[in-house]
Amino acid sequence: MSGDTTATGGTTPAPGANPLRDPGDRRLPRIAGPSGLVIFGVTGDLSRKKLMPAVYDLANRGLLPPGFSLVGFARRDWEDEDFAKVVHDSVKEHARTPFREEVWRQLSEGMRFVPGVFDDDAAFETLRQTIDRLDKERGTGGNFAFYLSVPPKFFPLVVQQLKKHGLSEGKGDSWRRAVIEKPFGHDLASARELNRTVHGVFANHEVFRIDHYLGKETVQNILALRFANTMFEPLWNRSYVDHVQITMAEDIGIGGRAGYYDGIGSARDVIQNHLLQLLALTAMEEPVSFDAKALVTEKLKVLNAVRLPTDMARTTVRGQYTAGWQGGVRVPGYLQEEGIDPGSVTDTYAALKLEIDNRRWAGVPFYLRTGKRLGRRVTEIAVVFQRAPYSPFDATDTRELNNNALVIRVQPDEGVTIRFGSKVPGTQMEIRDVTMDFAYGESFTESSPEAYERLLLDVLLGDANLFPRHQEVERSWEILDPVEEFWATGGRPEPYTAGTWGPKAADEMLARDGRSWRRP
Amino acid sequence: MSGDTTATGGTTPAPGANPLRDPGDRRLPRIAGPSGLVIFGVTGDLSRKKLMPAVYDLANRGLLPPGFSLVGFARRDWEDEDFAKVVHDSVKEHARTPFREEVWRQLSEGMRFVPGVFDDDAAFETLRQTIDRLDKERGTGGNFAFYLSVPPKFFPLVVQQLKKHGLSEGKGDSWRRAVIEKPFGHDLASARELNRTVHGVFANHEVFRIDHYLGKETVQNILALRFANTMFEPLWNRSYVDHVQITMAEDIGIGGRAGYYDGIGSARDVIQNHLLQLLALTAMEEPVSFDAKALVTEKLKVLNAVRLPTDMARTTVRGQYTAGWQGGVRVPGYLQEEGIDPGSVTDTYAALKLEIDNRRWAGVPFYLRTGKRLGRRVTEIAVVFQRAPYSPFDATDTRELNNNALVIRVQPDEGVTIRFGSKVPGTQMEIRDVTMDFAYGESFTESSPEAYERLLLDVLLGDANLFPRHQEVERSWEILDPVEEFWATGGRPEPYTAGTWGPKAADEMLARDGRSWRRP
Repeated sequence: MSGDTTATGGTTPAPGANPLRDPGDRRLPRIAGPSGLVIFGVTGDLSRKKLMPAVYDLANRGLLPPGFSLVGFARRDWEDEDFAKVVHDSVKEHARTPFREEVWRQLSEGMRFVPGVFDDDAAFETLRQTIDRLDKERGTGGNFAFYLSVPPKFFPLVVQQLKKHGLSEGKGDSWRRAVIEKPFGHDLASARELNRTVHGVFANHEVFRIDHYLGKETVQNILALRFANTMFEPLWNRSYVDHVQITMAEDIGIGGRAGYYDGIGSARDVIQNHLLQLLALTAMEEPVSFDAKALVTEKLKVLNAVRLPTDMARTTVRGQYTAGWQGGVRVPGYLQEEGIDPGSVTDTYAALKLEIDNRRWAGVPFYLRTGKRLGRRVTEIAVVFQRAPYSPFDATDTRELNNNALVIRVQPDEGVTIRFGSKVPGTQMEIRDVTMDFAYGESFTESSPEAYERLLLDVLLGDANLFPRHQEVERSWEILDPVEEFWATGGRPEPYTAGTWGPKAADEMLARDGRSWRRP
Repeated sequence: MSGDTTATGGTTPAPGANPLRDPGDRRLPRIAGPSGLVIFGVTGDLSRKKLMPAVYDLANRGLLPPGFSLVGFARRDWEDEDFAKVVHDSVKEHARTPFREEVWRQLSEGMRFVPGVFDDDAAFETLRQTIDRLDKERGTGGNFAFYLSVPPKFFPLVVQQLKKHGLSEGKGDSWRRAVIEKPFGHDLASARELNRTVHGVFANHEVFRIDHYLGKETVQNILALRFANTMFEPLWNRSYVDHVQITMAEDIGIGGRAGYYDGIGSARDVIQNHLLQLLALTAMEEPVSFDAKALVTEKLKVLNAVRLPTDMARTTVRGQYTAGWQGGVRVPGYLQEEGIDPGSVTDTYAALKLEIDNRRWAGVPFYLRTGKRLGRRVTEIAVVFQRAPYSPFDATDTRELNNNALVIRVQPDEGVTIRFGSKVPGTQMEIRDVTMDFAYGESFTESSPEAYERLLLDVLLGDANLFPRHQEVERSWEILDPVEEFWATGGRPEPYTAGTWGPKAADEMLARDGRSWRRP
């Protein structure tokens, strides 16, 4: 690992000064060293709703260096002040920490705006000069991250421009990093092409792929749960686990994303990245340490052990929502959404049954599902255990008992639930399911940082733990490609009514295995 | 097992008629067949506070036969009506279910009182006639249980009288049973003597020893938790468990029990019965079924595997409370309690470290402790797991992490708690203890029957699951005898201030092993 994975001590402000930091915390906080962030596509939704507020929140928590600078790049006729105003409004509306004038003042002094389009050499020249000036005026030390919050088709152009104008390489000890957002291609071939392009300019360790799910507390807690404890890992294998269900359900439709979504669909949008990453964290072996290399090694190992799907008529399901009721409101079907081709065969629901060919998981299916317009917004990982191999109880006494389960609730109501059997009060030995529950919100006074806060800080620290590497991205496409190809050979997705839990075929897929989906 | 472990169907009242029974319950309820109960020492505290209310509650839940009869025997100049009035007042004050006139009327019609002392042959003759008449008038079928709620010194006399007057044996299919309360002797020799006396009159399966702790829901739930689930049993052994702590702490002093308590002490009063029974249920192997024979076999097996204490200066601690503050009130020390010899060396606190010599538990200490005037009233079993064998986390990140633990809360706040490590929200991978919790009161709408309800019903059903057998009682004395003998060789119990968690030596005992007591 490179030396910049830990904070440089020199820029650490006095910890006692910050009311948002736990005064009992005697640890050295992870604070970014001298650096700045350039956002391409700074006028977009992601930038306004997530990136700008995250930058402010990090500053407010005292985790950014005093001279931190934020440069916006977009086709707008803005001065620095106009940009600062946009950031100000975004922070006021979306930041998670209270607005403090002195923090804002210091941060806003480092805001610059560069107007331009991506093929405009003059604009990139201006950007270079802006960065050089910031190094002098604010002590950013030549360390800059470039956040490509732009459609993927512009990735090649932007990284080429960065190279052409000498922006992609730091001088001396200083660093340059590129941050890219999914989709990382739409199949294996295009992902490889994209990676070739990006890595033609930036080295492996300089590229940060954002999967914002990996920035969520509960996702990181999978690692803590499994490897900081004694109780769970002994059960975490084929001897005790019956199957695993990984669900990301949305109650909303496609909203304004018709242009992006149609032709992509739920499997490419969610399973290829979020759900396969959750699978990897749930199923991987214990890494030697939590540096990025050790972690990627283990994630990649288990993704490589995922058997490429075959028999896809029985192990995959795709669906498309039709009109229905949700939250007491009549909602249109997918084909009636604005901007959607009425003949579209895009999947808004996808479910896969995957097998992992290794000693730990052989014979334990991992069921993945995602969908829009489902019954409820919920993301969870349910590890469902086998029934007790022998029951000394009367069959009638355990009639209502289900399999034990450990459920990691990623969102909302972040936490962990265990379902197990307990004696029902009374003079008989009747046993019924109960749950025990750990809720993040109730157990900690610390506020959870937003995923983007965590991930932006990691970029500035050069900590790549929570970012999928290109090998993982490519392997995930390799897993999904046969499914997409099978679906493309014909037929339509199975319709399901908006507000329900997906198409019947998904229930049937589990029923064939003698199992059923959780209704979270 | 004898045929009377299940209910006889003939006396089952229509289930729909009872508002206290769950209408969704399609199981055949365990309902006592034709029978009656004779209580010796019916004017005592136990009888008034526990037995009479339990009888009423059972009747109210529809679990007693319509002709059920209750006979009181005591040295009082009472008629049946006087006795019924005493029961009425006791029920009104102590019953857990609502008072219903029609239930009371039916029950009170079967109440009889026999005045007399235990060596009075005429009184026992009257008792015999009373029982015969009840068989004719109320259809009790000759099935009677004799509850000896009397000081143990009277046990031999009462059982001899029962034999002499032909009361100890049922005619034909009918049964007679004896119910006895602890103390079952005060050492191995006296326990054997007592068992010889009782078993000279009643057969093994006709004697029911009440350890009311075994009637508690949470104690029975140990069996459900361990054997109806998949998740816990794989962890329940020396590979994962570091040690087990079994605690029964009382905040009260000896109250009015000076006469009984002094010279007996906390180890004989609590460890010999309650705590060793909890140890047996926690540590035993899985029984083939839950009939009494299979269960006793396993409990006895593990009690026999408990290594007899040696090196008692290091593995045992006894204490005696001194004056202190409790609940904001100044309380006297044990030696200042009314009726206590100021030179008494009786232990009001006792702690033992026990080892179990078998494959499952070798090297895993079981720490048992009990005491009066401790910080809080609590009974719990804490299974404390080992630390993770390897931690990929930075040492500073897991600094505040303790061992995982599973705690069965026997009373109060009945339930189960799991303590484990979870990521602290924030941009670092800090891990701290959290708990997840299952509370009986919140998870079930069913009301818990009082321990005596459950146990009395079991006596009438002939179900001996929850009653220790004489072999267990004797083995438990065998474990405790060397400790008591060691303590008797000299010295005084170590003083501890009322309201604290016991003598310093108890903390030191665990500290020598690198462990510490839970502060529940």
